[in-house]
Amino acid sequence: MRAEYINPFITSLNNAFSTMLNCPVSRGPLRLRSGNGALHEVSGIIGLSGRAVGTVVLSLSREVALQAASTMLMMEATEINDDVVDAVGELTNMVASGAKAQLEQFDLSISLPNVITGSHHEIRFPSNVSPICVPFTTPWGPMAMEVGLTEVAVPV
Amino acid sequence: MRAEYINPFITSLNNAFSTMLNCPVSRGPLRLRSGNGALHEVSGIIGLSGRAVGTVVLSLSREVALQAASTMLMMEATEINDDVVDAVGELTNMVASGAKAQLEQFDLSISLPNVITGSHHEIRFPSNVSPICVPFTTPWGPMAMEVGLTEVAVPV
Repeated sequence: MRAEYINPFITSLNNAFSTMLNCPVSRGPLRLRSGNGALHEVSGIIGLSGRAVGTVVLSLSREVALQAASTMLMMEATEINDDVVDAVGELTNMVASGAKAQLEQFDLSISLPNVITGSHHEIRFPSNVSPICVPFTTPWGPMAMEVGLTEVAVPV
Repeated sequence: MRAEYINPFITSLNNAFSTMLNCPVSRGPLRLRSGNGALHEVSGIIGLSGRAVGTVVLSLSREVALQAASTMLMMEATEINDDVVDAVGELTNMVASGAKAQLEQFDLSISLPNVITGSHHEIRFPSNVSPICVPFTTPWGPMAMEVGLTEVAVPV
């Protein structure tokens, strides 16, 4: 994946967290994923397709997932229940939608968000895709975004 | 999700397993997902978008993943390594592609397959989507397919 493609996703994540959650985020250094260890406990995942195909993963520590959901739902969330899953899915969808708007050249469409839970889950990409991982810190705790996007000759 | 939409996915899975893996599969009763327990240890996941949005999950027991990959790779796979992950991703992609061809009315496009590992992972859908789960048995062990697909008014 070309490194410049990550920027629209970073911008979109920053926008979502600042405008909707009023939560400032601080980005760590980009890195190619090495190894396949779990990122964090709750991961939103959404597929992209068009003139490129790919996946956005938004992986949140438990604390970030609960606080983000509490803010979005305007009620305190204390466990990873359906409401929190929906909130994390919606957040993932917003990040993908914001990036899609900045990547017009790929005419992307976005699938349904799923949320993966389990403290030891790993999300792996095809070996010919090199996803870029971006760690973030927030006042609520750590999180990370991972994006794998590969151009296709013919839209799928 | 309307129950008839599951049939193209079942047909496609049967085709993939019989033609590519020479592995007969036997389908159990359809059920709506209740609870969010893990299905099996290795899950391929791929997003769909167009006039409907959704996700296909192909969740394989460890034995099915290893045997399917061994057959596809023509070498014995004994651990869940990158080759097995790629094989499971490709299998998931084939199931989705075969179903897409039978669901022309939705003009679906398919994203990149990801593979989730970890014996206790759970893959959750938005609460307004009711995915259908189809258990299968094979000579290699159990597996399951889960599909959530929801029609959209305006293609995304």
